[in-house]
Amino acid sequence: MAQQKKLVEAITSRDTDFAKWYTDIVKKAELADYSGVKGCMIIRPYGYAIWENIQKDMDRRFKKTGHENVYMPMFIPESLLQKEKDHVEGFAPECAWVTIGGSEKLNEKLCVRPTSETLFCEHFAKVINSYRDLPKLYNQWCSVVRWEKTTRPFLRTSEFLWQEGHTMHETPEEAREETLKMLQVYTDFYKDTLAIPAVIGRKTEKEKFAGAEETYTIEPMMYNGVALQGGTTHYFGDGFAKSFDITFTGRDNKLQYPFQTSWGTSTRMIGAIIMVHGDDDGLILPPKVAPIQVAVIPVAQKKEGVLEKANILKDRLLDKDIRVKLDDSDKAPGWKFSQYEMMGVPIRLEIGPKDIENNKCVLVRRDTREKISVPLENVECAVNETLQKIHENMYNRALENLKSKTYTAHSHEEFLDIAASKPGFIKAMWCGRTECEEKLKDETGGVKSRCIPFVEEHISDVCVCCGKPAKNMVYWGRQY
Amino acid sequence: MAQQKKLVEAITSRDTDFAKWYTDIVKKAELADYSGVKGCMIIRPYGYAIWENIQKDMDRRFKKTGHENVYMPMFIPESLLQKEKDHVEGFAPECAWVTIGGSEKLNEKLCVRPTSETLFCEHFAKVINSYRDLPKLYNQWCSVVRWEKTTRPFLRTSEFLWQEGHTMHETPEEAREETLKMLQVYTDFYKDTLAIPAVIGRKTEKEKFAGAEETYTIEPMMYNGVALQGGTTHYFGDGFAKSFDITFTGRDNKLQYPFQTSWGTSTRMIGAIIMVHGDDDGLILPPKVAPIQVAVIPVAQKKEGVLEKANILKDRLLDKDIRVKLDDSDKAPGWKFSQYEMMGVPIRLEIGPKDIENNKCVLVRRDTREKISVPLENVECAVNETLQKIHENMYNRALENLKSKTYTAHSHEEFLDIAASKPGFIKAMWCGRTECEEKLKDETGGVKSRCIPFVEEHISDVCVCCGKPAKNMVYWGRQY
Repeated sequence: MAQQKKLVEAITSRDTDFAKWYTDIVKKAELADYSGVKGCMIIRPYGYAIWENIQKDMDRRFKKTGHENVYMPMFIPESLLQKEKDHVEGFAPECAWVTIGGSEKLNEKLCVRPTSETLFCEHFAKVINSYRDLPKLYNQWCSVVRWEKTTRPFLRTSEFLWQEGHTMHETPEEAREETLKMLQVYTDFYKDTLAIPAVIGRKTEKEKFAGAEETYTIEPMMYNGVALQGGTTHYFGDGFAKSFDITFTGRDNKLQYPFQTSWGTSTRMIGAIIMVHGDDDGLILPPKVAPIQVAVIPVAQKKEGVLEKANILKDRLLDKDIRVKLDDSDKAPGWKFSQYEMMGVPIRLEIGPKDIENNKCVLVRRDTREKISVPLENVECAVNETLQKIHENMYNRALENLKSKTYTAHSHEEFLDIAASKPGFIKAMWCGRTECEEKLKDETGGVKSRCIPFVEEHISDVCVCCGKPAKNMVYWGRQY
Repeated sequence: MAQQKKLVEAITSRDTDFAKWYTDIVKKAELADYSGVKGCMIIRPYGYAIWENIQKDMDRRFKKTGHENVYMPMFIPESLLQKEKDHVEGFAPECAWVTIGGSEKLNEKLCVRPTSETLFCEHFAKVINSYRDLPKLYNQWCSVVRWEKTTRPFLRTSEFLWQEGHTMHETPEEAREETLKMLQVYTDFYKDTLAIPAVIGRKTEKEKFAGAEETYTIEPMMYNGVALQGGTTHYFGDGFAKSFDITFTGRDNKLQYPFQTSWGTSTRMIGAIIMVHGDDDGLILPPKVAPIQVAVIPVAQKKEGVLEKANILKDRLLDKDIRVKLDDSDKAPGWKFSQYEMMGVPIRLEIGPKDIENNKCVLVRRDTREKISVPLENVECAVNETLQKIHENMYNRALENLKSKTYTAHSHEEFLDIAASKPGFIKAMWCGRTECEEKLKDETGGVKSRCIPFVEEHISDVCVCCGKPAKNMVYWGRQY
């Protein structure tokens, strides 16, 4: 057990230094590595396998809701980016610009896409002519670039992988419905696949997407009480359509502008998985996206029959489409135990000579450390049931964390007090003015509005900042 | 049938103008569109769905052979690209360079990856320490940029989607084996999934990849006799390893350099599908990658029971995991027939009142136009069998084309004569000198060496160009 101890000690405790704990895990679980390009990361096989599982699950949800995948160019000519005023103001400052192509200086510089609204709009203008061409429900999986000053793997990098949905509709109602539908798709995905609960709602004017009329957001809370913007959906009205001259002949035979949405989530979700679920021994992966769901560890594997039985166990689980790995390397079982714990593998199955004698194996849950003796004939069933239980327990634990770290501020003083002493979300009333958001952010050193929930509680009649009549209840919090 | 006629007339005949026929299909089947960025294309839903099917199939083959997916940054610092001399000479002239990031001029310009050997090497240097870390079998799905002067959708674009495998091995033998293994994976994929036969072999010194010791290639022949470089695999020896200082402690406890390969295929394969299989009525898609494998077209669909039966048919095929679309739009059946023919859908099922009366439907093959009356109770079976037959017929037809357009040149005169009058491959002997390759290319206006096959025929004793002793039999041909 000496090796196990050593391995575990190498991860900083999350209560001691959460930031260091995070980067320790990213490095030791071999999720990502730094590259020679400032702010860009390498996603290593184990991290990428999580992303592939995320993609597969989300893509199925997108297709089920009628969306089709496309691929747009990665470059945006400067003139195209400038077509929508708010949009270019929001993104131009963080663009990477290509100015030389094939040894020659370009006549017009090209931005490496930070997001693709402008490219989609240019294409929509060509392919939308009649109401019969609507809706257009497109999605794209790609990488985007936003030049960041300070970066952290998965959470904030100059290049990241994401999906961006872009849709066009005949009516504002239909587009609004899409905006909310995709927020629900994200919320379901976070709950059912990532085992992550969240607060959802509308962003304030100050926090909405550059060029959008409305932005909706899903805001999960990390273990340490800090929020992560987990995904956003935007309703654009016909603003971009007007700037890009996208028109269609309606049912009334008149020319009109279509109504637009976009929505996105990114590899940042891997950061959320780490920070919501992980503990001092490493990752704890939600079973549905875990690249390895079950690690089979033979004990005393040199004894006759052990490896054979372990292999049978592995094959039986593979037959049930369970992602299983048998580790028959020459390392000590104790080392393997802590290695797969660190990698967040949901279930470990130990099988040694004694177990075989009793026709059993030992099932160990990563989330609770519970050890269960399982008759060999029941192993598929026990594993499937336990994976489901782990998912539920992880979700409930995260929900408990979110609830216990959500506070209510009735006054300005109380708001500042909570912000200073209790990491988490603060529910408080707000007058609707940007200056109060800015003041609260300055006073607290970074607490910002997260969202206005769909169901608002009535905490008081007045804004927690200025004392004027309150318009909304807002969730507030620090963010990554 | 007037509408059908009109639709068909809109495609240029492939014997009249192959290039125009090609772009007509790309446009009318809605595979791709031009974008506002010179040389970059938009891959539309139908084209992207083909790419997704290609990806899924190839990715399964890569994983089955032990490869893991990763993601590297899209930017390569100039100094990193320059580390391997031959490599930078090959790629620097066609790079797009980022010189401004976040409103500031960069200290070092960044190349948008044209290929990622340098990035993988930088990472390998960090993660390879011992022979226990080998082999590293990585693959990446991403987009790359090569600044092209003249472009054509799928065949040659400034940005394209591809996969690039990068592997590191303990011994040269193992790396060479990988190079040939992946060529075989590509060859199997072309044959079993795309129904495309090809010539395979080794590239000459002149044609090999920048920085490689050996390059292998798969060269399918398009309908018009022109070759397409369909995929390449490269053996690097330890050249890059030395340039990037990648070392490992061997079994003998001594520090040594690992041996490397890379291999790639791209969206260009969609171009090959079009040009190998298509005809004057449009696309003919290989069943295994067709986004729609069966189009169900109701006839007299307003008659009672027709749509109902058509829906049952669709659901039954869906249950068998067949990709099926029921078109119940208000367009005429004739229009639909030619629409799905143009889209290359392998099978059309027609069902009308008379068919229903007889408990039958009409199955029409896209490849042969054959119409078969199928009892409704047999439809799943008939569809599955026919999809397999279509695949085989498409492969055999393409093989026949390749064989009938492959010629043997015994003399210089015969070579020039064939090159001038018969589009296709030419088998001819070669002395092994680059100057003969260049001379033949100049004399013929573009006929280049395709590859030296693994099994060479003995055509004569002397080089077809200079008359000196022959070293190899080479396949020659024009290329896209």
